[in-house]
Amino acid sequence: MNIVDIITKKRDHQELNKQEINYWITGVIEETIPEYQTSALLMAIVLNGMNEEEIGNLTESMMHSGDVVDLSGIEGIKVDKHSTGGVGDKTSIVLGPLVAAAGGKVAKMSGRGLGHTGGTLDKLESIEGFNPYLNQNEFIDVVNKVGCAIIGQSENLVKADKILYSLRDVTGTVDSIALIASSIMSKKLASGSDAIVLDVKIGEGAFMKDIESGRKLAKTMIAIGKHLNRDVRAVLSNMNQPLGRAIGNSLEVIEAIETLQNRGPKEFEELCINSAAIMLTQGKQVNNYEEGRELALETLRSGKAFDKLVDFVEAQGGNSEQIKNTKLLPMAKNSLSLKSNKTGWISDIDALELGKLSMHLGGGRVKASDSINHGVGLVLGVHVGSKVNRGHDLVTIYYDEDVLPKQRIQEAYACFTFSDEPVEVQPVILEMID
Amino acid sequence: MNIVDIITKKRDHQELNKQEINYWITGVIEETIPEYQTSALLMAIVLNGMNEEEIGNLTESMMHSGDVVDLSGIEGIKVDKHSTGGVGDKTSIVLGPLVAAAGGKVAKMSGRGLGHTGGTLDKLESIEGFNPYLNQNEFIDVVNKVGCAIIGQSENLVKADKILYSLRDVTGTVDSIALIASSIMSKKLASGSDAIVLDVKIGEGAFMKDIESGRKLAKTMIAIGKHLNRDVRAVLSNMNQPLGRAIGNSLEVIEAIETLQNRGPKEFEELCINSAAIMLTQGKQVNNYEEGRELALETLRSGKAFDKLVDFVEAQGGNSEQIKNTKLLPMAKNSLSLKSNKTGWISDIDALELGKLSMHLGGGRVKASDSINHGVGLVLGVHVGSKVNRGHDLVTIYYDEDVLPKQRIQEAYACFTFSDEPVEVQPVILEMID
Repeated sequence: MNIVDIITKKRDHQELNKQEINYWITGVIEETIPEYQTSALLMAIVLNGMNEEEIGNLTESMMHSGDVVDLSGIEGIKVDKHSTGGVGDKTSIVLGPLVAAAGGKVAKMSGRGLGHTGGTLDKLESIEGFNPYLNQNEFIDVVNKVGCAIIGQSENLVKADKILYSLRDVTGTVDSIALIASSIMSKKLASGSDAIVLDVKIGEGAFMKDIESGRKLAKTMIAIGKHLNRDVRAVLSNMNQPLGRAIGNSLEVIEAIETLQNRGPKEFEELCINSAAIMLTQGKQVNNYEEGRELALETLRSGKAFDKLVDFVEAQGGNSEQIKNTKLLPMAKNSLSLKSNKTGWISDIDALELGKLSMHLGGGRVKASDSINHGVGLVLGVHVGSKVNRGHDLVTIYYDEDVLPKQRIQEAYACFTFSDEPVEVQPVILEMID
Repeated sequence: MNIVDIITKKRDHQELNKQEINYWITGVIEETIPEYQTSALLMAIVLNGMNEEEIGNLTESMMHSGDVVDLSGIEGIKVDKHSTGGVGDKTSIVLGPLVAAAGGKVAKMSGRGLGHTGGTLDKLESIEGFNPYLNQNEFIDVVNKVGCAIIGQSENLVKADKILYSLRDVTGTVDSIALIASSIMSKKLASGSDAIVLDVKIGEGAFMKDIESGRKLAKTMIAIGKHLNRDVRAVLSNMNQPLGRAIGNSLEVIEAIETLQNRGPKEFEELCINSAAIMLTQGKQVNNYEEGRELALETLRSGKAFDKLVDFVEAQGGNSEQIKNTKLLPMAKNSLSLKSNKTGWISDIDALELGKLSMHLGGGRVKASDSINHGVGLVLGVHVGSKVNRGHDLVTIYYDEDVLPKQRIQEAYACFTFSDEPVEVQPVILEMID
């Protein structure tokens, strides 16, 4: 077997077999195949695609290119959730406790933020003492005891993905359903859960710009699940504006807490209930999706989900006083509310630009080595569809500088598009696929 | 400008502009663009193609990536010829003297052989003292005095092509009309001639397997010529068997001499007359192709072309006694004629395998650092279409080993395919394009 023949096959629209894909991925991690050959093959995959069999085999090879987490020490069906990334996405902080409080098992590995998207670990670290670096045994113990735990992804998980991703980033080979799906799924599968809900975000600010490509990605990942005997289901959700109202770290933790206290934004609550319902179905706490919705809502309304958040934070060493009294969480020194200078309906809120704005305030990382300011960020006063009068709060900016640069204010204003007529509001859940 | 955007544009089927192509090629030769980015772009070019404008700009950038030869010291229109490579192709050794004897100017840079194809320089070096390393002034002097000269290609010509070619070779990105055409044409144009005849070989043993792709390559190279104001015309010629009867170095020189003495193989003579006619038209020695044919034939028949070969060899330091008496040329110690063990018509002669056989006898190079044995090779006793009886000479092998390995004999026999019925013979010239 040699890599030039493999590249040539893919260039000529032929199917790569399991041995060939494995030969490539092994060569990537052992550095016996040079980057220039891998990048040529990546471009051939971007342009000629891969079928389900190939994508399944690629995912399997990648999954085994590093550690594979063994969660057999946790009783029952382990359910996990993955979002393709969005601005203001604090879903995991709600879903973990919510599903756990309803009897499910959530052993989640999560990442840090880079660029305009925040990371669940960074958000959770707003809480004093919260430790995302449990070892394998501690992790399993917390899940067994509390029902959920969220830790940082092991450095040794899916080694091939790190190498391939950094190469894809500089060779124009990011945009490929086959490569995106295998990258996501290899990490999820190596993380050891039995069942996974995928939240595929659709919209201008998301990876997938339209519902067609989102649907294709979702179906591809479900097929990978079948290939590897995992129960994978997907939700296509709207990402034409930030998720919820808060963007930042402690600001998002506060919104997650408020949601668990039954006073969060309705669309965000709906997204959480919907995913929880699927996870409870997969975990066999219920018999079907409708029962799952019922159980999730009941668990939320009863306050048990909020109590579970307190247990979960304590189990990972966090100061739960900050959960019970959010005024104790880190908060920026200053805030400024931007008032609308127009009257009309909000037709668009630019999630991508608001994400970048939060990053520039210090809430995110421009480069991986940057540190995070947990107290800064943004809270929206409107959503798409809101009727706005002159003077209405559009957004409140939380910042630590003495004077907020004018540029930031202009950038924030530019994120809101107005319409003279009422705007139809799209539902947060666009489609469910399994 | 940045290379990832350029790769992404080509990936997305967009046209690259002159500045972008120039930025890339400059980055390649200055090594500021890493190989993994170039190979991704090469694969995108292979799969998405380039239009004529892009290929013209690529050729121009490549042409200027090294020295550009200035032939203005030679009076008149300089004509050159390029063949896409074949087994037994000694055309240059005939065409240079033939065109020069008819009044044309041929200032030719040529290469060495690698693999199954021989190189004109290697063949000419069969002649004692022949010097292919004239400096620029000596080269121009010989052309002004004799009408033709053939020297080795400067190391500094088209630097980008060397880098790109070695990368294409190991990344499955050789097969691309855009990349093949720009590689050939950038070298031809940097060599400084005003007009070029391209001999595009078609057949199993050639780069272009079918007439359609050969036609496309020819038209692409003609368009590049237009883009850069050069008179480029093309001949599509048949390469379903070796060209002429001799394969080797001194053996091919002998066949070239015999052709210039009006006793060469007819199809090979026809190919030479045809190319010479076009070159004489381009050089304005005649008004049209038909006049060109007449002048070329007259020059050949009169013996002036052969006399010119003698002058040309002497002008480059070669021992012309070996031209006048070919017995003085290097010759292998032993020879063996393989007799047919069948009766029938020859339907196919495998040029590629015979080229490899000559290479293994020592007449060619397996790797670039190998040295050449000038005396070994093969002479065919038959051509496609020949009626053969049992005992008829198929091929004579010239070898220097004491005993010719049985494997070589088996390989040689395997190159001949027989038919029970007469075989239609295809013409050597398939098409002319300008």
